[in-house]
Amino acid sequence: MKKNILIVTVIALSNFASASLVEDAKKVGLAPIPTDKSELIKLIDNPKNPINKAKVELGKALFFEPRLSKSNLISCNTCHNLATGGVDGVSAAIGHNWTANPHHLNSPTVYNAVFMEKQFWDGRELDLEAQAQGPLQAKPEMAISKEMAVKRISSMAGYKEQFKEAFGDNNISFQKIADAIGAFERILVTPSNFDKFLAGDQKALSTEEQEGLKTFIDKGCTACHTGIGIGGGMQKFPLVKPYKYANIGDFKGDKNGMVKTPTLRNIAQTAPYFHNGAVWSLEEAVMIMGETQLGMALKDKEIKSIVTFLKSLDGEMPTITYPKLPSVTAMTPQPKVD
Amino acid sequence: MKKNILIVTVIALSNFASASLVEDAKKVGLAPIPTDKSELIKLIDNPKNPINKAKVELGKALFFEPRLSKSNLISCNTCHNLATGGVDGVSAAIGHNWTANPHHLNSPTVYNAVFMEKQFWDGRELDLEAQAQGPLQAKPEMAISKEMAVKRISSMAGYKEQFKEAFGDNNISFQKIADAIGAFERILVTPSNFDKFLAGDQKALSTEEQEGLKTFIDKGCTACHTGIGIGGGMQKFPLVKPYKYANIGDFKGDKNGMVKTPTLRNIAQTAPYFHNGAVWSLEEAVMIMGETQLGMALKDKEIKSIVTFLKSLDGEMPTITYPKLPSVTAMTPQPKVD
Repeated sequence: MKKNILIVTVIALSNFASASLVEDAKKVGLAPIPTDKSELIKLIDNPKNPINKAKVELGKALFFEPRLSKSNLISCNTCHNLATGGVDGVSAAIGHNWTANPHHLNSPTVYNAVFMEKQFWDGRELDLEAQAQGPLQAKPEMAISKEMAVKRISSMAGYKEQFKEAFGDNNISFQKIADAIGAFERILVTPSNFDKFLAGDQKALSTEEQEGLKTFIDKGCTACHTGIGIGGGMQKFPLVKPYKYANIGDFKGDKNGMVKTPTLRNIAQTAPYFHNGAVWSLEEAVMIMGETQLGMALKDKEIKSIVTFLKSLDGEMPTITYPKLPSVTAMTPQPKVD
Repeated sequence: MKKNILIVTVIALSNFASASLVEDAKKVGLAPIPTDKSELIKLIDNPKNPINKAKVELGKALFFEPRLSKSNLISCNTCHNLATGGVDGVSAAIGHNWTANPHHLNSPTVYNAVFMEKQFWDGRELDLEAQAQGPLQAKPEMAISKEMAVKRISSMAGYKEQFKEAFGDNNISFQKIADAIGAFERILVTPSNFDKFLAGDQKALSTEEQEGLKTFIDKGCTACHTGIGIGGGMQKFPLVKPYKYANIGDFKGDKNGMVKTPTLRNIAQTAPYFHNGAVWSLEEAVMIMGETQLGMALKDKEIKSIVTFLKSLDGEMPTITYPKLPSVTAMTPQPKVD
């Protein structure tokens, strides 16, 4: 009988501890991905480019569409591969003609990018629709002109009908191509055990993961890694101490030295880390963050604990049916591989 | 009343004509993809690498697996893109470090490749399992060594279990990687209206398509383009007259000058054509075939008619759920992009 009372007390205390941890997490701005579908849609939607089923389906086709690159060989999915955490697994993005990003910038994940306040490492665009226009045209990425993109897509039977369903008219423009891609990217959100925990399921995180979350909060990581995106704002980097791999590439942030804070959702799947993809180990990445942003030498135990928490941010990826894209026609401009 | 009799007579004659056309098609060796599932499985299976559900699922993951390339950037699907007819839409395949195929060879479609008697343009491999080992290792393709492929795949949690389910033991080898990919490729068959027609549904092809089939047979195209694969054997190319684009690349076939006859299934989706991808128009391809293989100048009307038939070979692609691939770990060898 005594034993039972003890167990009940321990569980009650543990629940109490969890509840208080949830409060602490919310106080520093951490927030779950809504489970209510209409609440979620409201959150991820763009009033200037409202989501609808046909637009998302079209956007998926265009996201996987290699004919949207000069060479016919590169799609959005090449660098933001939905099979591998929404990234490409290389330090610096590689695009047309095997050209590396000239600033040695790493491809950020497209999953949960909708929760970022700004897009690109220097935060130069505000939404996914504007972002999508960049890599399509960039010479070291997909290297296609607006005109060529429209010509290619317009030439293929099937797309016209899809644009009509998505936008109400079948006039294909570069803006609409990017808007459809943006609409698709908006649905790429990945709810995790951490979200369940924040929403009240106190068993969703193990004791170790909860300890990691506590360390994550206590050390001050949430100064930048907060909100639903667990990142996504702009921050000085490095802030306190120099970044040991600063010599790789020449990126210095925006004109004020501000750099977009990456999301930590699915972070265990998106190595290598930092804007220049210099670090392959999550443990090392956490250690460096302690140094550069918090000015502290995190202990091995603390690093391990934080990494344990970070792994609980691995989310459930949406199921994606691989598209069957329309055939080229005699009207389709041919690719150029050089 | 008279009118009705006339209509009935016309339909009867037309049915008779169709039935006789089916007989003619079968006489020259054309054959449908079986609709009976167990008959189909028997046909596509490899006794040395029996298909099972787990193996096909693993093979799908590996087919889309970019970490099976030296760079982390190229998968089987890069050149044999299942969204675009199983091909890449460029003249010569482009692989690691943006290197074009040294012989300027075009990537053949992976759809229905199981029906080919031999694999590769020079027919040097007999089955898909043997074929898969080539591009993985070829320097201008995925450029990975056997050892590195095994190291990469073994390092990622999740694969071990999948190999156990697929092969009965979780010992990962290069052979098993290729075998799983082969098993997946075996299911990539695309039944079309032409198959329905051959199986007895006389309305499955329009009158124009039937006329095209008749022309296709009468002109002798079925000398090479026959069987379930509508191609897939070895044939002298060019046979009668020179190939006008022979100067592109240096491929001359196998040691006897024999070249694998490509499948015509989904041919409307797999431009550019011929081993060196020199021709973008299906009409021009048919015209050239008339010249080089049959020694005749096909009339425009005949070419159009044949092309109309060829379009009826567009088949139903299997629905593929895009895989979620395992995460890299600290043990995973890093990519090399140069």
